[in-house]
Amino acid sequence: MDVAVIGGTGAEGFGLALRLAKAGHRVTIGSRDADRGTESAAKASELAGAALEGTDNAGATAAAGGDGVVAVTVPYAGQAEIYRSIKDAVAAGAVVLDATSPLATAVGGRPWQVLRPWHGSAAEQAQAILGEGPRVVAGLHTIAAEALQALDRDVDSDVLLCADDPEAKARAGTLIEGIPGMRWIDCGRLEMARVAEPLTALLVSINRTYKVKDSGFRIVGRDAWGASAR
Amino acid sequence: MDVAVIGGTGAEGFGLALRLAKAGHRVTIGSRDADRGTESAAKASELAGAALEGTDNAGATAAAGGDGVVAVTVPYAGQAEIYRSIKDAVAAGAVVLDATSPLATAVGGRPWQVLRPWHGSAAEQAQAILGEGPRVVAGLHTIAAEALQALDRDVDSDVLLCADDPEAKARAGTLIEGIPGMRWIDCGRLEMARVAEPLTALLVSINRTYKVKDSGFRIVGRDAWGASAR
Repeated sequence: MDVAVIGGTGAEGFGLALRLAKAGHRVTIGSRDADRGTESAAKASELAGAALEGTDNAGATAAAGGDGVVAVTVPYAGQAEIYRSIKDAVAAGAVVLDATSPLATAVGGRPWQVLRPWHGSAAEQAQAILGEGPRVVAGLHTIAAEALQALDRDVDSDVLLCADDPEAKARAGTLIEGIPGMRWIDCGRLEMARVAEPLTALLVSINRTYKVKDSGFRIVGRDAWGASAR
Repeated sequence: MDVAVIGGTGAEGFGLALRLAKAGHRVTIGSRDADRGTESAAKASELAGAALEGTDNAGATAAAGGDGVVAVTVPYAGQAEIYRSIKDAVAAGAVVLDATSPLATAVGGRPWQVLRPWHGSAAEQAQAILGEGPRVVAGLHTIAAEALQALDRDVDSDVLLCADDPEAKARAGTLIEGIPGMRWIDCGRLEMARVAEPLTALLVSINRTYKVKDSGFRIVGRDAWGASAR
């Protein structure tokens, strides 16, 4: 699949880009600065043992095309601005996988505190900026950057996906299933991101208390998750 | 330990009372109506194979004493009123384990939607009503009533505990550790309940999508949880 990782020079995005390239997808790392995107892609290609491209955020978004996924892994403080900068480059049919958590660090607060975005969640803000066309899926809030970057071990955490469009959710899910150890859970409509996004803050708090770096979530109660029968 | 289960005639409280009695604690079921508390205790004694007491909410609260735990498992719509009714009965030193989730059902909404309580979380509202003395611990939001009531199998979910007082958190944790399959995770201060309480809604949404009744959470990234070294 063609995948763009917007904010792919950050710790979470870089880890995601590595994992997706390793899984065989054609990954383009996007950055505000095209040169940084290219540099990051060169470094990622070496680590993943697969060729990644790098460019600016709008260029990477366009490269994902209409059958691909645009993964957006940026801090909440810059999220709205970045969505405005890629809006015109999102192809018809594209799925946007938003990983933003509205941590209070955006306003000088602590990473275990969260803000309540005006639209309800950061993902709903993304959908509001993009308008009706592109389909936003919220996810990845429970996946630590450290876990993504540690290519020598599986990722031990589930991804909670929230989206209004089942087909979009399944497309994002396909990416997730391809990363060793990761599963995805259908958590309902996009507005459920209001509950899922703050889980990043909960894991930060747990990491802090127990002095670990990559605590995660597993959903139990069923042997298999992924696409529901519904 | 002496434990009161306020709202112990409800599905969640009744299941908790069963599990705690089975684990050897002296459990008193509280209800708005003392007779219903007594009836519920008789039924629970039969199911658990252990003697439970039953009375009204204030009487049960007093019975927990200062070394015990007052577990409060009531719907959000009635939470404030019930806390006002037990406030004077909470003994000095008691730990209050609040399991309330601010589900939108309180105002005619859906159980996968949540409200934002004025104090930040339902548990912080409880602390505000009780005042400075009693120590509130938020927890149990991730434990389905069905799982608690099914005494023939272990509970497959972790409890996320949030409290300002480490000793109070550890006392509530002792209760949880005694229930087969259950563990507790120190999630930080009481205000972290703002993130933990809405997880009930997320599990309701997952249950609904996959047509299951008792999905749950497990925290991963460390072999043992419970009391942290901190």
